Amino acid sequence: MAESSRDPGEKKTTVSALLGVRNGVRAIDFYKAAFGAVELFRTTGEDGSVVAQLSVGSSDFWVADEAPEHQNFSPATLGGSTVRMVMVVDDPDAVFDRAVAAGASGLWPVVDQPYGWRIGRIVDPYGHHWEIGKPLPHAS
Amino acid sequence: MAESSRDPGEKKTTVSALLGVRNGVRAIDFYKAAFGAVELFRTTGEDGSVVAQLSVGSSDFWVADEAPEHQNFSPATLGGSTVRMVMVVDDPDAVFDRAVAAGASGLWPVVDQPYGWRIGRIVDPYGHHWEIGKPLPHAS
Repeated sequence: MAESSRDPGEKKTTVSALLGVRNGVRAIDFYKAAFGAVELFRTTGEDGSVVAQLSVGSSDFWVADEAPEHQNFSPATLGGSTVRMVMVVDDPDAVFDRAVAAGASGLWPVVDQPYGWRIGRIVDPYGHHWEIGKPLPHAS
Repeated sequence: MAESSRDPGEKKTTVSALLGVRNGVRAIDFYKAAFGAVELFRTTGEDGSVVAQLSVGSSDFWVADEAPEHQNFSPATLGGSTVRMVMVVDDPDAVFDRAVAAGASGLWPVVDQPYGWRIGRIVDPYGHHWEIGKPLPHAS
């Protein structure tokens, strides 16, 4: 797992998000097509449900079929998402366009924002929201 | 930002979760008390709403007040969470206990699971779910 020099006492601690979805198998394929995600791990249950760990750049995230009986919900079930994913990339316009070509919906186009980021936002076919952007050079 | 050797062509790409909450200021304090989170960045709006970037170990996550008019929801508003956070630590029992002492609810205790992790799950006071665990040594 990646390490930083920020917190030398707890280097081994990592935090990553696990996205609840309907149809995890298709969702994994979407994240590969949209973001070039690499599959690090996958386990499949007897009912076909999956839990998978994916990487994008230097970060990991997880995808799993929802299981409302275990309080694991998808955006489709709750009618929205309680977490949005922030993706920092060198070329937000290109990543945004690739995700839309793979099936995401463009919610806000990629533009320069007054708070110093060039950023846009998509909703993926599973209802998760992704902000895709990069910090702009400081106007000093 | 942390880097890995996994995907040398896209080292700069990172993905992190932004948790929607009610009362962001208090939520930030909770994550500091519960997880020893370090505040990297905070911006406060005229209405007192906040967006903050926190780090835990080698990972970052974000916390922001919900804004349903922008499709940013909290678990309190939707009645559940669409993402759960996976925290990998050296000592899941201690981290679990510290989070509960800070105000989280223990949902599943920390136990050895047949899939090879020692792991438990809490719900934080803002409705976000955290799995806190570590992989067990392989029983070969």
